[in-house]
Amino acid sequence: MPEVKEKILSIIGVGLIGGSLAKAAKSAGLCQKVIGYGRCPESLQRAVDLGVIDQATTNIPDAVKNADFVLLATPVGAFEPLLKQAAGYFKSNAVITDVGSTKVSVVESVRRALGEVPSNFVPGHPIAGTENSGVEYADSELFDKRRVILTPLDNTDPDAVFRVRQMWEGVGSIVSEMAVNHHDEVLAATSHMPHMLAYLMVDRLSKMDAQHEVFKYAASGFRDFTRIASSDPVMWRDICLANGDALLLALEQYSSELMQLRNAIESKDDEYLMALFSRAKSVRDQFS
Amino acid sequence: MPEVKEKILSIIGVGLIGGSLAKAAKSAGLCQKVIGYGRCPESLQRAVDLGVIDQATTNIPDAVKNADFVLLATPVGAFEPLLKQAAGYFKSNAVITDVGSTKVSVVESVRRALGEVPSNFVPGHPIAGTENSGVEYADSELFDKRRVILTPLDNTDPDAVFRVRQMWEGVGSIVSEMAVNHHDEVLAATSHMPHMLAYLMVDRLSKMDAQHEVFKYAASGFRDFTRIASSDPVMWRDICLANGDALLLALEQYSSELMQLRNAIESKDDEYLMALFSRAKSVRDQFS
Repeated sequence: MPEVKEKILSIIGVGLIGGSLAKAAKSAGLCQKVIGYGRCPESLQRAVDLGVIDQATTNIPDAVKNADFVLLATPVGAFEPLLKQAAGYFKSNAVITDVGSTKVSVVESVRRALGEVPSNFVPGHPIAGTENSGVEYADSELFDKRRVILTPLDNTDPDAVFRVRQMWEGVGSIVSEMAVNHHDEVLAATSHMPHMLAYLMVDRLSKMDAQHEVFKYAASGFRDFTRIASSDPVMWRDICLANGDALLLALEQYSSELMQLRNAIESKDDEYLMALFSRAKSVRDQFS
Repeated sequence: MPEVKEKILSIIGVGLIGGSLAKAAKSAGLCQKVIGYGRCPESLQRAVDLGVIDQATTNIPDAVKNADFVLLATPVGAFEPLLKQAAGYFKSNAVITDVGSTKVSVVESVRRALGEVPSNFVPGHPIAGTENSGVEYADSELFDKRRVILTPLDNTDPDAVFRVRQMWEGVGSIVSEMAVNHHDEVLAATSHMPHMLAYLMVDRLSKMDAQHEVFKYAASGFRDFTRIASSDPVMWRDICLANGDALLLALEQYSSELMQLRNAIESKDDEYLMALFSRAKSVRDQFS
């Protein structure tokens, strides 16, 4: 496989994910220069000071016009206005990809912004991250051995897919491809639902009368269970808005199973409870 | 505070919790000898071989008749039959306590088994543990800096409470006291509910068509969120049966909030979502 170097990498949104790809790509020699776009000059300056990006701009045309590889790494809600501003400024041989946690909505945003999804746009999603956000947490190892899902469309240029795949594989990721819709169903189940449940659980506890007491008695299991409730609210609001259909379906199935469990507890159905917990434990143990 | 040494410590149920207290009490010099009771001779022999207990028996009267301090550490469902077998064999100056995760039901079991809750019985609950079970995981540091809740009744002998408190403080725990009912409400919220949600989530995913694929794309957040679904099914069945009332109440409140969240996602209520996630993040961040 020939090594393809992207001369200029443009990171639109230099937070945890964008900053981590910038660092990883630089340290793997996958690009020569990184330009970072952001709205906040102070945060961009920090990214420069930290050596995450080489050059900073708050102007979208400047951020993309010389770039060979453009990574959209803002919250997905910002993609449409950003792409509108960028329209017409991309280099003809540039590839564009994104890191959005939802893919149906990203494809729709791109279509709304640009009239169509260009053949050099490869929707993508690295399944990596932490509950922390911000360029301060950028980590060149963040994508190592992590999954990246690409969801190319029928008209997507195979060469563009190849270049995006090379970038992610170059920073250590395991890349696979799937249909846009399927991606959103899988992620609703494995990521979006758990986040909803954890946010609700912490919120519920904080509403209980003696909140400080309650948290005082929470053990390490609770700490693990609710860690994801420290995730960025803006990102998760956007995910809920963007992946509403798949998330609603997952929520409804979950609620109905919660009701079955409720009934089993009420009727002291020890066989149901034992079967449920044993099945789940056996699956979870395999997963570890 | 004078040091009170319990000459003989009897551990009824030598698993993770019972075994850990045995190790911790021995290494802190809080007892001279540990007798372990269990149903399975092989497992008891392992506990002896590991140095967790000094002497093993599968006979309840033998386990308690010389003991100064008796710890019930089996699943709570076994307390009633075990106490019935032990009745009449306890030393007059012995203290008896337990480690059950629910306290209303333990008090009821004791009452059913012995006709009353004796003044030397101190219901207790160390909030410690891991998703692992079994004496192999016994750890003398398990209770260090962990909370232990004691729920003495009106007739409980203050000297018995003092001795149980000394045992737990002697192994590094922070001991507090609260009413039996209140304990069960607090634990339903902080522990029992999260376990139910995690078990259901793993079970739901395992039912999805392409289960292996789905788990393949689950990230570290999912791993943390579902870690508690590896917990012992027998223990959790017993907890559901034992703390049904408080758990049902918690489940109902949670379900109703889940429905509100569902409606907010359906109606794309970005303000509701942003407020919920921000509130929860802020509370969770303080808790870390």
